[in-house]
Amino acid sequence: MRPLTRLLRVGGVELGAGRPVRVQTMGNLPLTEVGANIAQIERCAALGCEIFRLALPDDFLLPFFGEIIAHSPLPVIADIHFHPSLLRKALEAGAAGARINPGNVGSSTDWSETVRLFEDLGAVMRIGVNGGSLNKEALKLHGHTAEALVASAQEWSNRLYDLGFYRFKVSLKSSDVRTTVQAYRLFSKVSDIPLHIGLTEAGPLPEGLIKSSAALGTLLLEGIGDTLRISLTAPPEEEVKAAWELLSSLNLRRRWPEVISCPLCARSSYPFTELLPKLLPRIKSLSLPIKVAFMGCEVNGPGEAREAEIGLAFSKGKAFLFRKGEIVERGDPEPMVERLLQVLEEMARDPS
Amino acid sequence: MRPLTRLLRVGGVELGAGRPVRVQTMGNLPLTEVGANIAQIERCAALGCEIFRLALPDDFLLPFFGEIIAHSPLPVIADIHFHPSLLRKALEAGAAGARINPGNVGSSTDWSETVRLFEDLGAVMRIGVNGGSLNKEALKLHGHTAEALVASAQEWSNRLYDLGFYRFKVSLKSSDVRTTVQAYRLFSKVSDIPLHIGLTEAGPLPEGLIKSSAALGTLLLEGIGDTLRISLTAPPEEEVKAAWELLSSLNLRRRWPEVISCPLCARSSYPFTELLPKLLPRIKSLSLPIKVAFMGCEVNGPGEAREAEIGLAFSKGKAFLFRKGEIVERGDPEPMVERLLQVLEEMARDPS
Repeated sequence: MRPLTRLLRVGGVELGAGRPVRVQTMGNLPLTEVGANIAQIERCAALGCEIFRLALPDDFLLPFFGEIIAHSPLPVIADIHFHPSLLRKALEAGAAGARINPGNVGSSTDWSETVRLFEDLGAVMRIGVNGGSLNKEALKLHGHTAEALVASAQEWSNRLYDLGFYRFKVSLKSSDVRTTVQAYRLFSKVSDIPLHIGLTEAGPLPEGLIKSSAALGTLLLEGIGDTLRISLTAPPEEEVKAAWELLSSLNLRRRWPEVISCPLCARSSYPFTELLPKLLPRIKSLSLPIKVAFMGCEVNGPGEAREAEIGLAFSKGKAFLFRKGEIVERGDPEPMVERLLQVLEEMARDPS
Repeated sequence: MRPLTRLLRVGGVELGAGRPVRVQTMGNLPLTEVGANIAQIERCAALGCEIFRLALPDDFLLPFFGEIIAHSPLPVIADIHFHPSLLRKALEAGAAGARINPGNVGSSTDWSETVRLFEDLGAVMRIGVNGGSLNKEALKLHGHTAEALVASAQEWSNRLYDLGFYRFKVSLKSSDVRTTVQAYRLFSKVSDIPLHIGLTEAGPLPEGLIKSSAALGTLLLEGIGDTLRISLTAPPEEEVKAAWELLSSLNLRRRWPEVISCPLCARSSYPFTELLPKLLPRIKSLSLPIKVAFMGCEVNGPGEAREAEIGLAFSKGKAFLFRKGEIVERGDPEPMVERLLQVLEEMARDPS
């Protein structure tokens, strides 16, 4: 059962309290390139990103930051390190919220006024604990463990509670899959604060994808996570696509057709190693949240194709088009592939 | 805690009973291309594959199958559907074992003689239940559910037990992540039969990788799985690499350096989007089971780099080489990257 978390509004986007798991990413361009940043956010929005984060490392970038936000189709979160004074300025520039890192934000600042501004503007904060930048006390007590991440998040949650502030979420990221999973599990047991899940420094493709999917897949299957970012050493567009694929594979959310296809083996009677990459862009461009199966032989073909809403099974030189468990058409492979695409395109135009 | 499973020997490879999780893949070439099959097995073995599967769809392929096995550096498993009579012939041709699919193997065959041959030769069987080819009784009773997969595996396990045969493992694959995870969890609770884990029809990259990592990552974190195959609509070499990356990310087994690198953001002071892809082949070619960190800025850089055995953090135009938590060298980025590679190569030559 999905743990209950509080409702949080990030700009116009609701998360927590049973809302769909929201997809985030983070820009990777210098803020001074305003047009390129806006174009990147627009591309990510078109792919299904719902919240966009930008690093705000310095005061002098505030005008660029504000200009990007003014044109952004998505709520923008400011990522702030070392300079708590930037929190207020980020909101004044139009940010829907800000992320702080307890490990480098310093603990002496009086935040009562800042927090009041967040409250007045309906802005949200994220306490973004990170295994790579834990504060010294947490490290001394707990070492590089899940408990250290949780202790740091709890300390800062209490600090915000003391200020009467509840409009925040928490993340507990490490670059280690086990530590990350354990930290979120522990925190989820003791709190109903909405959780932003992710693995930090996951690395380049495909490793980053493998690690993030293992960690976040495990958590999402337990119902943990109200919003996610799959951090990759790759453009943010790839992060958004990966996040949707993960949500889709867990039957949590689906945006475009999910393609099921069998691994090729000597049984395969149709060479679709070459076929699939050519078809995928056309299939994935459709706003059609269903499963589509491509099966290369008669062993698993018809069965799996039947589990999908629609599919093709290739057997003995012929192709069989299945819809909802029934063979509806059969013919030579090439025309049947084209026929499947036609049907998909019709379904996308008229989903009823 | 890892559930206890029985020990099984597949050719020279031990699995179950706390042995390392073994990496498998499956050939995708026509068996008639003997030389190409042998070369593919050799490439997979060099990448860390430990058990190799080949589909054996027909009698007439037996001589090719036997010839491939005679030159294979890995134990070969025959994948058999529809024709139980091929089981015996596959072993006579040199297979270390065979996989059957309860959904299509027929239930009337008297297997006592076949099973005796398996026993005499020390060969293993896999009961490979597959969501796409469940038998009618299981489907009628349970529908397309985890329970149907488990019921089918239990029925066939009992059948082998009745014949006095224990030398087998089980897989319960579906193309659905939740169903697959649930099936293995259920089966693992009622039996100590070694488990081959995998997701079937996972699809092309990157989707297949995302789904498989979510499903198998969840299971492996619970200690479920004695051997795995990551099924991709991609060459078997990719499956082997992905399996090792997954095991590595869960700290279960490590074969080559695991690269931790941060996602790029506006904070980054060194453009290693272009750098990393160039370095990866050189790093991944080293037999050095450690974590290597590349960090782009001072926020998480030094901290994460310290968690890795060795790493580089880039900050303000300089690069810092860390080993075991200490900065050991600093300098300009380019020479320091080269220096890191030198050190790694030295470590690989002399791991002490």
